[in-house]
Amino acid sequence: MTRLGIDAMGGDFAPENVILGATDALPCIDSETELVLIGDRERITEVCRHYGVDSGNFVIADAAQKIEMGEHPVNAYMKKRNSSINVGFRYLKEKEIDAFASAGNTGAMLVGSVETIGALPGIIRPCISALVPLFNGQNMLILDVGLNTDAKPEMLCQFAILGTLYAKTIMGIERPRVALLNIGAEPEKGNDTTVKAYEMISRMGEYFDFVGNMEANALFNGGIADVLVTEGFVGNVCLKQSEGMYELIARLGVTHPFFKRFNYEFYGGTPVLGIAAPVVIGHGVSTPVAIKNMILETEKVVKCNLVGKLKNALDEEKNKVE
Amino acid sequence: MTRLGIDAMGGDFAPENVILGATDALPCIDSETELVLIGDRERITEVCRHYGVDSGNFVIADAAQKIEMGEHPVNAYMKKRNSSINVGFRYLKEKEIDAFASAGNTGAMLVGSVETIGALPGIIRPCISALVPLFNGQNMLILDVGLNTDAKPEMLCQFAILGTLYAKTIMGIERPRVALLNIGAEPEKGNDTTVKAYEMISRMGEYFDFVGNMEANALFNGGIADVLVTEGFVGNVCLKQSEGMYELIARLGVTHPFFKRFNYEFYGGTPVLGIAAPVVIGHGVSTPVAIKNMILETEKVVKCNLVGKLKNALDEEKNKVE
Repeated sequence: MTRLGIDAMGGDFAPENVILGATDALPCIDSETELVLIGDRERITEVCRHYGVDSGNFVIADAAQKIEMGEHPVNAYMKKRNSSINVGFRYLKEKEIDAFASAGNTGAMLVGSVETIGALPGIIRPCISALVPLFNGQNMLILDVGLNTDAKPEMLCQFAILGTLYAKTIMGIERPRVALLNIGAEPEKGNDTTVKAYEMISRMGEYFDFVGNMEANALFNGGIADVLVTEGFVGNVCLKQSEGMYELIARLGVTHPFFKRFNYEFYGGTPVLGIAAPVVIGHGVSTPVAIKNMILETEKVVKCNLVGKLKNALDEEKNKVE
Repeated sequence: MTRLGIDAMGGDFAPENVILGATDALPCIDSETELVLIGDRERITEVCRHYGVDSGNFVIADAAQKIEMGEHPVNAYMKKRNSSINVGFRYLKEKEIDAFASAGNTGAMLVGSVETIGALPGIIRPCISALVPLFNGQNMLILDVGLNTDAKPEMLCQFAILGTLYAKTIMGIERPRVALLNIGAEPEKGNDTTVKAYEMISRMGEYFDFVGNMEANALFNGGIADVLVTEGFVGNVCLKQSEGMYELIARLGVTHPFFKRFNYEFYGGTPVLGIAAPVVIGHGVSTPVAIKNMILETEKVVKCNLVGKLKNALDEEKNKVE
């Protein structure tokens, strides 16, 4: 039995969209998987009734408080001990649930990941990733996309390893190609961080194929890399600019199947990489489709044992060094 | 009489495209403006003859050497004293020409700008900018787009001033709105540099209206800011990602008039801001149209006295402090 904890109060249209998305996910998940909706029990049952959804399809875990989208993450997480996010992380820590997913306050999700769950041994800082749709029909994983601003070269090396393991485990790529996002092709190009990171990552050939620097004009080209490593500030700018492009295309009335792949709904959520239990963060403006896909992504992360594989890889690495 | 120095050997298709572009520019420039083509005199006259262009339309300044596109900027600039780029900067320094423009090796152009011309008094580091086409039909200036990686908050403040003066002088905006590129809306969001820069720029209200942080998903929206300030690494990633988007759109066969405005040909070149004489850098793959527009941009920079206005503004600022 797998139990996926879902923050019923997370996202701009919660709990309505969460309940609708969770209902749509039910026929797609394993019969042995149980969805645990965490939030205000009264609101959840009321919304279920309103939409004619059988609340008996879910386990409901009561959480009296809610962290709002605009709240200061650290303050809110420290104060609202009975919020759905706090309760979710407590359940995850106590193994009442096997994973926790939320489309709520991203900052609070990250605080909970680090404070309550904690990083895997050997990980300096966890990170988050996103999938970039490529022209050749494939996807490329980009990380970090916002958790670590001012990331050091050592962290970029770890992002390369985390990304490689994600690409192997979730994307099914046997030997991932890793590139470093930079502003020139040559090793000496870029800023202090990328110059040092290039040198360090180029010595990590046992884990992946390092294909060198990639410039942002090649971001969507495909055929270059499976994993793109970058510092969190730059990665977040890249990701948001892609979102902006998607919105621009829509506003211009341009329709092309390629751009459908930029729709965050299809990805649903992204796991926090490098922490000791599965946590998936969804998009704040999550629709029922996005919530459904966030739940399916969460199930996949658990079934593939992403966290266990990350842990094993880090242990192996540690043993080699010792 | 205004004399514009043009690097005849600069760009992937030089001197052919430079000569064709310069010929197309002739009917558009002031009758008192003279074009000085700097490069291999023999090649220039030969190409003119080949295309049936009267070489008497131009002043030709001989330069025996050429810095190739792939050469190491500093080494090439220091060694090839008779290269067209070196000769151009020497002429500019000696006031033989009023401005120098090249679509050649960008790095060498920047080295020449800093080493031979030098920064205006009070400027920590010069920078380069680009125009972002906006949904509302206007453009927004983004700077720095690649000259200063690891830029300090103080430099970002200067970019704000340089951008404001460009927006006033060249774009004709009376009181520019300045935004800071960041990964969140609130002042405390971002990395160490943006947090400090936010605080410093917010105290510069006498020069411009600071509208706060802008996230990259709003890059093309319009109606927010006229000038977007960012550190050179991030700005370069933004610019290249926009180029990548433009290429992607073309590859997908999507046509929409909006994307024509992303074509670098229409902008032709960007001035190096913060140095003591007008220098304009064109795009390496410059077509004749791009060269023509680079020349028109260069004439505009001279006629508007951009450098003089920057110098006055910096002097005023200095006097206030003293």
